[in-house]
Amino acid sequence: MRIVVDAMGSDNYPEPDVAGAVMAAREWRDEIILVGDERRIEAELAKHDTAGLVLRVVHASEVIEMTDKPAESAKQKTDSSMHVGMNLVKDGEADGYVTMGNTGGVLAVATLHTLKRIRGIKRPALAGILPTGSGHFVSADIGANADCRPEFLVQFALMASAYAELVLGIERPRVALLSNGEEEGKGNALIKETAPMLADLPMLNYVGNVEPKEIVRGDADVVIQDGFTGNVFLKTMEAAAKMVSQLIRDEIMAGTLTKVGGALARPAFDRAKKKIDPSEVGGAPLLGVDGVVIIGHGRSDALGVKNGIRQARMAIEANVIEAIREGAARM
Amino acid sequence: MRIVVDAMGSDNYPEPDVAGAVMAAREWRDEIILVGDERRIEAELAKHDTAGLVLRVVHASEVIEMTDKPAESAKQKTDSSMHVGMNLVKDGEADGYVTMGNTGGVLAVATLHTLKRIRGIKRPALAGILPTGSGHFVSADIGANADCRPEFLVQFALMASAYAELVLGIERPRVALLSNGEEEGKGNALIKETAPMLADLPMLNYVGNVEPKEIVRGDADVVIQDGFTGNVFLKTMEAAAKMVSQLIRDEIMAGTLTKVGGALARPAFDRAKKKIDPSEVGGAPLLGVDGVVIIGHGRSDALGVKNGIRQARMAIEANVIEAIREGAARM
Repeated sequence: MRIVVDAMGSDNYPEPDVAGAVMAAREWRDEIILVGDERRIEAELAKHDTAGLVLRVVHASEVIEMTDKPAESAKQKTDSSMHVGMNLVKDGEADGYVTMGNTGGVLAVATLHTLKRIRGIKRPALAGILPTGSGHFVSADIGANADCRPEFLVQFALMASAYAELVLGIERPRVALLSNGEEEGKGNALIKETAPMLADLPMLNYVGNVEPKEIVRGDADVVIQDGFTGNVFLKTMEAAAKMVSQLIRDEIMAGTLTKVGGALARPAFDRAKKKIDPSEVGGAPLLGVDGVVIIGHGRSDALGVKNGIRQARMAIEANVIEAIREGAARM
Repeated sequence: MRIVVDAMGSDNYPEPDVAGAVMAAREWRDEIILVGDERRIEAELAKHDTAGLVLRVVHASEVIEMTDKPAESAKQKTDSSMHVGMNLVKDGEADGYVTMGNTGGVLAVATLHTLKRIRGIKRPALAGILPTGSGHFVSADIGANADCRPEFLVQFALMASAYAELVLGIERPRVALLSNGEEEGKGNALIKETAPMLADLPMLNYVGNVEPKEIVRGDADVVIQDGFTGNVFLKTMEAAAKMVSQLIRDEIMAGTLTKVGGALARPAFDRAKKKIDPSEVGGAPLLGVDGVVIIGHGRSDALGVKNGIRQARMAIEANVIEAIREGAARM
């Protein structure tokens, strides 16, 4: 496999991006193509033992920064590490693309300027692979499309279900709509209109509405919503988890005995934290563009980058793009 | 003060409802009017020492159950404890109404069949008083209106800001819109359209968009969104908090030393839990109907009911309905 890694993606680029790429090259022995400022990448690589690894550097003179406006910079910075990297995939010189960069930027570069959408796909969806109490589920859209029509959600469901089945190995994934009530007929206008359309698709294992409590209980493998709701859901999960951990920590530090207890229980806290750490998953596939694209968190460390590359490997191995192409052709 | 309590509201009615009413009557010495099945209420009251308390029972022959369809039952069960209770407020025989019952039912009975909306108010909003890491904020709407127009959100902002100021005593409450990004211009179509309208209102201390992480950090006193997003936000907070607590508990129980540590740290866990327990707040005001209405969680225990009554007392004392009436007249 040949995987492109955006060396200028993360908040602290190129350090974690290059370090994660080296880790991945060592673990899986794939060809890794680092795209970005050649000098900075070489300087970073010099810090690692890269003997025997297949690491290439491809220069890109521009960077789409986290603070850049997505549409504008995607149009103007045509020699960015995103443009150059995704064009390598488009031209068949690489099998997938991994970045920790500006999500809106990736979306614009992928959809409008390089890979483009798969024929028949109305909107690409960003699909998060998120933790429940006991496993994971695929959540789409989590931020690519703030405003959606029912037919977009139907396509998100088909693509995310294919991803869950082919890449994550879940047989007949249970597909649900995120709603304000699990009962049939609950929801806003978008959900109410989408629900019967999903129920009508025999290839989907549609199980109805779910509320957040059912999601964390593991009642669905794929949860569908518009990108605004999905993004608020994801960020609320993260914020609540952090708030609760912080509250518990503060209360533990407030007493002598509880402090001792907290020290003894420390390994348990660390294990719990690891279970819901987004770095453990590494990235979200951008479904519906014509090539494997994985977008990770800007805050990712080297482990996050490495795990993003693992997501890309899994998607490439499962040939998920071809499956979506075939699905879209039958829509 | 004379406060009506729906004796047939909670999931386990009338036990927690009556017990909470007795607790409140003892603590604040108000007149409490219990509405519902007279025999069952009397039987429940007989379990308590009510000497010296001002407790009245008003019979209502019907109950809007949790499983009832709101609009239908509100129309048909005209002698329900909700109809009878809210009519006491409407007729000036009581100052406020507290129920742990079917939210949709309360909404329909209040808006369409008894108290009605305050003149000029387009939609009532359910306003949650929710915990941050260090205090509380008012979140509206959290479930009364799944689909909203910008002008509804503007009214929610004005009502919730008045509530935060008058009832919770927050001076110049910071009002924000819940969005998928804190930057100006982020959001779905509804948020983008509402933002400049809020910025144009000099009586509001509008501070822009907030993401969930800013909310739990305490960056806003009032957070506005449509009732679908607000309901998903609220339920995600609850589900994530439960998931994280459960994960930590499971990991603590998985080792001998961590188990000992967990036992010692137990009081800290209990204090943290109490800080985010919805029973500690007791209920959400339904803003925009012409009378004080507080809706609590169906799962509430007696403490939750008592604290719901406390919310009603605070709203009555602050004369918040009159303030909203005056505000609406100037809209």
